[in-house]
Parts: sequence; structure tokens; C-alpha cells
Amino acid sequence: MSQSDLEESLSFVPKFDAAGLIPCIVSDAVSKTVLMFAYMNAESLELTLKTGEAHYWSRSRQSLWHKGATSGYVQRVVEMRTDCDQDCLWILVDVAAQGKGAAACHTGRKSCFYREVTMGDSGPVLTFKDSERLFDPKDVYSS
Amino acid sequence: MSQSDLEESLSFVPKFDAAGLIPCIVSDAVSKTVLMFAYMNAESLELTLKTGEAHYWSRSRQSLWHKGATSGYVQRVVEMRTDCDQDCLWILVDVAAQGKGAAACHTGRKSCFYREVTMGDSGPVLTFKDSERLFDPKDVYSS
Repeated sequence: MSQSDLEESLSFVPKFDAAGLIPCIVSDAVSKTVLMFAYMNAESLELTLKTGEAHYWSRSRQSLWHKGATSGYVQRVVEMRTDCDQDCLWILVDVAAQGKGAAACHTGRKSCFYREVTMGDSGPVLTFKDSERLFDPKDVYSS
Repeated sequence: MSQSDLEESLSFVPKFDAAGLIPCIVSDAVSKTVLMFAYMNAESLELTLKTGEAHYWSRSRQSLWHKGATSGYVQRVVEMRTDCDQDCLWILVDVAAQGKGAAACHTGRKSCFYREVTMGDSGPVLTFKDSERLFDPKDVYSS
């Protein structure tokens, strides 16, 4: 498929990397805040499209990951998009209906992006931002 | 640095991959729509922080990429965030001031994510969405 076809056609030909993965940006469907960033393989992408619930590939555990299977906070996919060269996905998920406890981050925060990077006097530094914990990870993930 | 330190400290220790790159999600600072997805190396990250304008590493051209150097539409970084395990960046850029022509995508669209993925009868299909062209790539990138 030519570059032009890839960009302008309506054929979905996701480009997986050498490890068989495609990056996936996950935003809150309402606020569009980025909640997390993960990877999908062909199987998790297919399951996401078929079930309407986000599935990823966990690189650390090397296994299929149905987001929310442990915490209960599954991510209902409202919309999925792909980019111009089809090597990245962006999904918009509905978490509002799950109430206050619906945290995308395993640290218990709504979003994984809870720290801002700014330039300090001696290099970049972090500052907490929107870092309120919605749950205590120990309560959710202890076995 | 322990996992807990990585997640809860205010030390910025971006985790570059084997190729020396870190993925970067780029959103419109106002609407939070994802405009594009790119990679930074240590140099482009430093330049972004120092100049306040987004710099990336172009994997296709294998070179430093000052976004907007060709089109004129530079991306002023309003905010940069990192995620829990510091292996992804999210930047919010101000493009509103540049008016209607400010397209993040080389195809001339505001966002690279101009096609929706849905499940059709015989597999996933794409549909154009928010795909209006703000400029003709031929006018901007011809040499």
C-alpha cells in the first residue's frame, strides 16, 4: 500500500512494530484528558473492537490485559481513531459513569499523567498536578 | 531508582527506549484533542524544554525535527507532563493563536487522527472524521 493510500484510504491496516505492538493513547471521552498510554497487539485490538472494552498487551507481564479486570473499572470505548500513517491508535473511553473511583492509573489516580515537567535552575523538575488519589492501590491490587 | 520512587518522586528521569527515544503525545492545549504522536530523543526533549517549542526526533528521516520549521506552524508548549513510570510524555501545545492554517498533520489536517475505526460486517473499517484540510501539502512542502 502506497503512502498516499495509507493516509487517504478507508482500509484499516494498523502497523504493528517489530514486537507486534501498536501504541495506543487513551483519553477521557468527555474532557479529552489523556488518561494513560499503552500498547495493543493484534489480539487485544480485535478484542477491544469486538467487546467495546479496552484490552491491551502488558509489556511488563507479557500477557493480554483486559483493563479493569482487577479493579472493576473497565474502559468502555466510545471512539477509536487511527493516525495518518496508521502506526498509532487513539481511543476515547467513558469512565464518567463509574463515578469517583474510576482511576486509569495503577497508583490510584484518574490519569497516569499526574506530574508536570518544567525547567528548573539546574535542569528539568517535576511538580504534582491533578494528583489526587481516587483509591489506595493496596486496597485494590492486594491479592 | 525504585518503582515507588519513580512514581512518587519529583525527580525527572525520563526512560528512553533501546533506540534512545521516548514517545510523546501532543494535544491542543485548549480542546485537548490529540493532534499527533511522535518521539523525542534526549536532545529534542532538552531543546523543547529550553526553547518552549516542540522538537522531536524523526524516525523516518533520522534527524532532529523542529516542528513547524518548514510550515511555519511551530508548536508552543503550554505544559509538559510525564506518566507514572516516566516512559511517556504528554505535551499541550498552543496552536489557536496561529489561526485556521495551523495543522499538526503533514496531510494538512489539524490532527493526524482524522479517521475513526469501527467494526464493520467483515472487519474493522475507517471513516473520515474532522478531516477537513487546512492547507494543501503541495503548497507547503514543495521545495
